Amino acid sequence: MPQVVVDVVLKPEISDPQGQAVLGALGRLGHTQVTGVRQGKHFVLDVEGAISRDDLERIAETLLANPVIEDVELHLPEA
Amino acid sequence: MPQVVVDVVLKPEISDPQGQAVLGALGRLGHTQVTGVRQGKHFVLDVEGAISRDDLERIAETLLANPVIEDVELHLPEA
Repeated sequence: MPQVVVDVVLKPEISDPQGQAVLGALGRLGHTQVTGVRQGKHFVLDVEGAISRDDLERIAETLLANPVIEDVELHLPEA
Repeated sequence: MPQVVVDVVLKPEISDPQGQAVLGALGRLGHTQVTGVRQGKHFVLDVEGAISRDDLERIAETLLANPVIEDVELHLPEA
């Protein structure tokens, strides 16, 4: 069954306390090569039958993300 | 600055109430072509200087994920 991956990330200007917390923990553990962390959501959708890229974009942008504060990256299976 | 993406997904045998809730909402809104949803976490790490793939795997598997219930997918920048 084809799978569509949707990554939802905070817009760059939105602060990310979860990512900051992870970054702080990595630094305290000595992983100072990591200089930034942003945390988002990762959805894997099983898709059956015909669904257009437009429909998937609409689902991703309106139902999986909050478009006020989040951006969406859609990864379709290779045709 | 190179970015490393780490996707953390629940192992297939672990139930995913968040994904089930999204799937239910999609069905009620008529998007019945979507037959499964799994929700995970998506981390984007900024990496500076030398860090090995092994180190990144260790960070991802021990600090970003709970290896008892989650699997990790590492996406390194192309060399």
